[in-house]
Amino acid sequence: MTELLHSEEFASLIELAFREDAPNGDISTRYILTESDQARATLIAKADGIISGLDVAYLALAWCIGDEDFIFERHCQDGDKVHKGDTLVTIEAPYAELLRAERIMLNFLQRMSGIATYTHKCVQCIAGTKTQILDTRKTAPGHRLTDKMAVRHGGGTNHRASLSDMVMLKDNHIAMAGGIIPAVKAVRPHLPISILIEVETSTLQEVREAIEAGADIIMLDNMSIETMKAAVALIDGQAEVEASGNMTAERLAAVAAVGVDYISIGALTHSVRAFDISMKIKPIQ
Amino acid sequence: MTELLHSEEFASLIELAFREDAPNGDISTRYILTESDQARATLIAKADGIISGLDVAYLALAWCIGDEDFIFERHCQDGDKVHKGDTLVTIEAPYAELLRAERIMLNFLQRMSGIATYTHKCVQCIAGTKTQILDTRKTAPGHRLTDKMAVRHGGGTNHRASLSDMVMLKDNHIAMAGGIIPAVKAVRPHLPISILIEVETSTLQEVREAIEAGADIIMLDNMSIETMKAAVALIDGQAEVEASGNMTAERLAAVAAVGVDYISIGALTHSVRAFDISMKIKPIQ
Amino acid sequence: MTELLHSEEFASLIELAFREDAPNGDISTRYILTESDQARATLIAKADGIISGLDVAYLALAWCIGDEDFIFERHCQDGDKVHKGDTLVTIEAPYAELLRAERIMLNFLQRMSGIATYTHKCVQCIAGTKTQILDTRKTAPGHRLTDKMAVRHGGGTNHRASLSDMVMLKDNHIAMAGGIIPAVKAVRPHLPISILIEVETSTLQEVREAIEAGADIIMLDNMSIETMKAAVALIDGQAEVEASGNMTAERLAAVAAVGVDYISIGALTHSVRAFDISMKIKPIQ
Amino acid sequence: MTELLHSEEFASLIELAFREDAPNGDISTRYILTESDQARATLIAKADGIISGLDVAYLALAWCIGDEDFIFERHCQDGDKVHKGDTLVTIEAPYAELLRAERIMLNFLQRMSGIATYTHKCVQCIAGTKTQILDTRKTAPGHRLTDKMAVRHGGGTNHRASLSDMVMLKDNHIAMAGGIIPAVKAVRPHLPISILIEVETSTLQEVREAIEAGADIIMLDNMSIETMKAAVALIDGQAEVEASGNMTAERLAAVAAVGVDYISIGALTHSVRAFDISMKIKPIQ
Amino acid sequence: MTELLHSEEFASLIELAFREDAPNGDISTRYILTESDQARATLIAKADGIISGLDVAYLALAWCIGDEDFIFERHCQDGDKVHKGDTLVTIEAPYAELLRAERIMLNFLQRMSGIATYTHKCVQCIAGTKTQILDTRKTAPGHRLTDKMAVRHGGGTNHRASLSDMVMLKDNHIAMAGGIIPAVKAVRPHLPISILIEVETSTLQEVREAIEAGADIIMLDNMSIETMKAAVALIDGQAEVEASGNMTAERLAAVAAVGVDYISIGALTHSVRAFDISMKIKPIQ
Amino acid sequence: MTELLHSEEFASLIELAFREDAPNGDISTRYILTESDQARATLIAKADGIISGLDVAYLALAWCIGDEDFIFERHCQDGDKVHKGDTLVTIEAPYAELLRAERIMLNFLQRMSGIATYTHKCVQCIAGTKTQILDTRKTAPGHRLTDKMAVRHGGGTNHRASLSDMVMLKDNHIAMAGGIIPAVKAVRPHLPISILIEVETSTLQEVREAIEAGADIIMLDNMSIETMKAAVALIDGQAEVEASGNMTAERLAAVAAVGVDYISIGALTHSVRAFDISMKIKPIQ
Repeated sequence: MTELLHSEEFASLIELAFREDAPNGDISTRYILTESDQARATLIAKADGIISGLDVAYLALAWCIGDEDFIFERHCQDGDKVHKGDTLVTIEAPYAELLRAERIMLNFLQRMSGIATYTHKCVQCIAGTKTQILDTRKTAPGHRLTDKMAVRHGGGTNHRASLSDMVMLKDNHIAMAGGIIPAVKAVRPHLPISILIEVETSTLQEVREAIEAGADIIMLDNMSIETMKAAVALIDGQAEVEASGNMTAERLAAVAAVGVDYISIGALTHSVRAFDISMKIKPIQ
Repeated sequence: MTELLHSEEFASLIELAFREDAPNGDISTRYILTESDQARATLIAKADGIISGLDVAYLALAWCIGDEDFIFERHCQDGDKVHKGDTLVTIEAPYAELLRAERIMLNFLQRMSGIATYTHKCVQCIAGTKTQILDTRKTAPGHRLTDKMAVRHGGGTNHRASLSDMVMLKDNHIAMAGGIIPAVKAVRPHLPISILIEVETSTLQEVREAIEAGADIIMLDNMSIETMKAAVALIDGQAEVEASGNMTAERLAAVAAVGVDYISIGALTHSVRAFDISMKIKPIQ
Repeated sequence: MTELLHSEEFASLIELAFREDAPNGDISTRYILTESDQARATLIAKADGIISGLDVAYLALAWCIGDEDFIFERHCQDGDKVHKGDTLVTIEAPYAELLRAERIMLNFLQRMSGIATYTHKCVQCIAGTKTQILDTRKTAPGHRLTDKMAVRHGGGTNHRASLSDMVMLKDNHIAMAGGIIPAVKAVRPHLPISILIEVETSTLQEVREAIEAGADIIMLDNMSIETMKAAVALIDGQAEVEASGNMTAERLAAVAAVGVDYISIGALTHSVRAFDISMKIKPIQ
Repeated sequence: MTELLHSEEFASLIELAFREDAPNGDISTRYILTESDQARATLIAKADGIISGLDVAYLALAWCIGDEDFIFERHCQDGDKVHKGDTLVTIEAPYAELLRAERIMLNFLQRMSGIATYTHKCVQCIAGTKTQILDTRKTAPGHRLTDKMAVRHGGGTNHRASLSDMVMLKDNHIAMAGGIIPAVKAVRPHLPISILIEVETSTLQEVREAIEAGADIIMLDNMSIETMKAAVALIDGQAEVEASGNMTAERLAAVAAVGVDYISIGALTHSVRAFDISMKIKPIQ
Repeated sequence: MTELLHSEEFASLIELAFREDAPNGDISTRYILTESDQARATLIAKADGIISGLDVAYLALAWCIGDEDFIFERHCQDGDKVHKGDTLVTIEAPYAELLRAERIMLNFLQRMSGIATYTHKCVQCIAGTKTQILDTRKTAPGHRLTDKMAVRHGGGTNHRASLSDMVMLKDNHIAMAGGIIPAVKAVRPHLPISILIEVETSTLQEVREAIEAGADIIMLDNMSIETMKAAVALIDGQAEVEASGNMTAERLAAVAAVGVDYISIGALTHSVRAFDISMKIKPIQ
Repeated sequence: MTELLHSEEFASLIELAFREDAPNGDISTRYILTESDQARATLIAKADGIISGLDVAYLALAWCIGDEDFIFERHCQDGDKVHKGDTLVTIEAPYAELLRAERIMLNFLQRMSGIATYTHKCVQCIAGTKTQILDTRKTAPGHRLTDKMAVRHGGGTNHRASLSDMVMLKDNHIAMAGGIIPAVKAVRPHLPISILIEVETSTLQEVREAIEAGADIIMLDNMSIETMKAAVALIDGQAEVEASGNMTAERLAAVAAVGVDYISIGALTHSVRAFDISMKIKPIQ
């Protein structure tokens, strides 16, 4: 939770979510519920999958109520496998605030659990190999942090969080610098000691240059299985290796068998199917 | 575009998108590209569908470059049908800024075009009826405005934007107020003259009460086709009618045939499949 | 209070009020009062009228003190009739914070109570009719929410809060669209289902067109009593009717007798006479 | 104008004014006017008085349009005397933006010109004396800067802008410090060299103590004309003198004749009667 | 502390300090420390000097922990003389938060104590005279408030805080206005009654003009001791006198002996030597 | 400059610098200079050293003037060696804005050039070795980015920018985790692929554990030259090596001779001696 509590981006997203969903408050409850009305709610899974977003839902509710004056009892944790019908969380909170936060909590939970469930499916496809499933920057704008948390909850590993925390030299950079080696040379001397360099390659010749340039990670982009095998052999532990491009669930096992360290998959976060969760609310007498 | 330019929520989302994607700038381009390097880019559809997000992409780029010092030539408009291989937009802009905005532009365009394309499919299912397809509040947090724009581009109609601009009395409100009629009575006198009241019903008895209470819109929630028919007959033009709950593409035609004014569909925005679009970038000599 | 607590605009105004009144704190108290000095204050009416602004004053003080570590005992509520000499509120709070908030609390209370008192006078002029007194957008910049609350406390009803939540087609829009009917047609299809359309008219011909166009509300602007009578007869319940323009207290009864639903009065909020309230502060030993 | 351009408070107020008046834009114009529609507007005085708020209106429009892409031709300046029927300003600007800014411009102009006109009346009451008319902190929350500008335009002088820029020791401070002399002694050593001290007095004994304490300014609060005369004689140029409390237009000449340096009047800004100004807008072909 | 608590500038600086030092939290502690781990820390002086920054350090920690859920026991106060080895403060707080705030607390304490220690040295050089040591605007950007607090803790007096709270007419203003007397005349009538005017002079002729112009304070800039003596004689109590320019510790006594009211020294804040303080942290079992 | 233009932290600092230095504008120039007055200024070095802060000064001026409506002609670049008397920059800009920005520009330039000049001196001490001089997090709060830029301009290399972009396991973390190896194991699996781990050691045994744990960088903290030699031999290229603690200019050559990759020095940024630069301003006729 620390990660979320200290993130300005997350705070901005939660604030925006509440602002857009009730810029002037919830006018349906204002004249019906009083400040003393309390409610009990249960969150229930409507399908099997991996749950993600409980910390987010908790903080959304805390943001809304303004302090911790509510009970949020978890019956499972982010990353847990759940089954249809499972009660995920029991909440006791002021009724009006709960109604105000309900849709936002569900919108996060359903998206994040959808991501975690699909990531988990991909991870299972390559179980037993050393290969890790990576996400990409193809996240919903504003959801970089939460989409990537959901990937971790599903068993995936995070690639760089942004353009600011790792160098990734792609075709455009390489062309402008006049080749892979000049590109790495142009960048390396200016970097703090904490920043790594990844180089994108699409041919074995580029792989050779990336090795010579001293890349920390080499991406094999849209290569055939055969080419990837040759690339891994060339690299031989001198850099980490990421396979990328058109990575459907069907292809994952074959790619992992090549011996790459990572496979990155855009669809984990760009095409999300909501995981169905419902909230039942009753007044507390 | 006016709608976007004057929306604080949209400004917050764009700002957040850029902040999360490059809190300290793009360190891969900083030492390779100069401020005078210019590039030409083309956005190309990789599938058939309805395009949405061009205004958003334009403003994202404008946000990034800081003024209008770029060319953004559209070959189609938001809401247009496009085909695989179509060039959607041609851009000329500073190279480094274009790389910085690329992923954000694509993340918006692919999500919004995915929504528009699926909405359009639903609208076609009920072509020729008076019924309109509505969205819901099941949007990605922070994306309320853009998700709903995409629904319009796909031919749908927008339901209320937020909890603040229409009263929707659901089971929870009704139970707390002691019935539909008391609930409406509790709320109506406090409202500005600009605010409508919708009442959610799940039985014909509730429909009768909603009519008597003077609801402006009556929602038929998870009713069978038969019950909906009876409800529409009871209402008989005294309020508008919205059908809701479990609205799959298969069921739409049958529901529209009942004569409801609106059908609302959560999946339009909660389970989005990205519409594939690519960006090709070349330096301008 | 919910309305105020969830309003970003109100938060901005309170923050601005404190910032402008003490950007670097209260240098008169800083070296005289200690953090442990406590005070008891009473707010006293110096005239007869309708009180408004108690919730606002409470929240201003809460904003200043930073939590609810003070007592704010109300002897009346917003909207109550009070008499000269009545004690309105008793407060116990840290002395320095009370001095810091004093002027801001009074500035709000005196303005809002002035608005409520005058609105109440107008409402009394038309007592016994169905007509409601409406406010306008002629509020002090930044005070839209609080000025309009005061109108409600005085017995008035709120017109639209802003340009964003109801369509009002005035002469400028109608001229540009080529008439009332084209104007309504241009707008209606793009609206969410929650938005109403009001049309401004100044002749009976325009009233007829507004009816035909399906306006939800028709404004009769600066019409004579006779013309208003004819207009109300024409409209005959097909739309709600608002009378506007030059509405002095003297004219209200005659206009209400015409049978309009609403009379809107700019002076409620653009020419406010402060209602005199004093604060007496004593140390608590 | 520099004063306004560099003031964060003013920026906050303008931003708040636009946010509250159109949080999601002007939905009446959005589908009728295009971005290329231009309009010409004239601001016309509907009464005689002192104009104030032209700079504010200009900046409000500039804020709205986003740059200086409009013409704002002034036929008079802030502080000028104007007559009923005078054209104050001619504007050419994008039509939609002009409609969006119209009400905000007028709300500022009418309030500020109302303040300036009344201040001017008070200043005329004491013409020929050395006495200056001062404002107070009884301004509309958020309007401290603009209300005080209007006072200057009307010929008044500004008292301290806030609790942060001058020490004013009132009865509460003096009681807590154990007298006027201890109060001044408690504060003076901590002050930067740029801060003055004013002491509030209500008896001649207090005046004597204030002199001895070395007050820079001495306020005579709610004293009779006779007492004020004695106080001015005691002070004899050792400090500046401000008369305060219940200062109606009728009493001003008599108070000024006492020889005080300043008379402060709360009603200048707490009970403002809007000065009527209209805006006429026509399309530019 | 009131001064800091109510300062937006200070809040901005603390927020910025934490944002830049951990934009996404402390990733070293996140997976090692739990939310329940508590620690005890001691702050220890590593040299002799004047301590400053304890209030700032306290508020930095409070900002980080989010409430006052920690113990901060002071063994000395801001402005106290401390010796090498002295324990300054004992803290008990959540371990992870303490590590997150540690560097920021120390960075403030070491800078501010460095300023206070050097200011104290300067003040001692002129002990026994009426002259006060002043700071300047040569502070680290963003540190105006805290640098100036440290000067006070070291026994100095603050000059104006900013360009907004006192007029200082320098050579550039005087040249543009056409002389000292025209410059003062151009400014005085527009000022609120709370604002003083200082005039910079470098010759006796300019001193004479400043006196005639009615300057409240006269700065003697880069004058010789002899010229300063003549200037002080000319001014003879008609204005306060500030000596400025090239004020090394060695020269202070001689300048003070001239009888000026103030000596201002840029080096107090532009060339700061950190005062060494260490923090020792141990877990609480 | 890209780095500065895209940094929110830098924007916050510049904004704060201007806010604190003129919250309500420059009242000394407001009534003397007009908006059309233009000035020409020269920045002149008053000593020999390395210049840093020109980009910052440029952006400060641009922030102040609001666009690029000024000339900023550089006669040297950040990182250049300059001599006493050199003209660094010639500026032509609106006179009032230049006076408003002058002090802020100088405060940045003098601090940053002071840092660069001292860093350069340290770098020269170890010229000819492979060792690089690193900065630390002991920067002035809010100045992390600019202080570190100045280090680079002086020839140094940047350590991690913040607690968020590299793991640094210190004695506190190691004790809580139960040793170096458990500490690294606790952290590594949760990290994105872009994050490195540094381990602080103070004995050879700890160095051995850090090697075994797979640390990417090993810090030798406060070790003797002999122990450092042994540590470097043990590490033997399996990790990068940083020497830290009490690194005076005198000791640098001896430490570098040990063969460490990096030496980090807190004094580069915590004890800065301002580099003297003056600005001369003349009106342009």
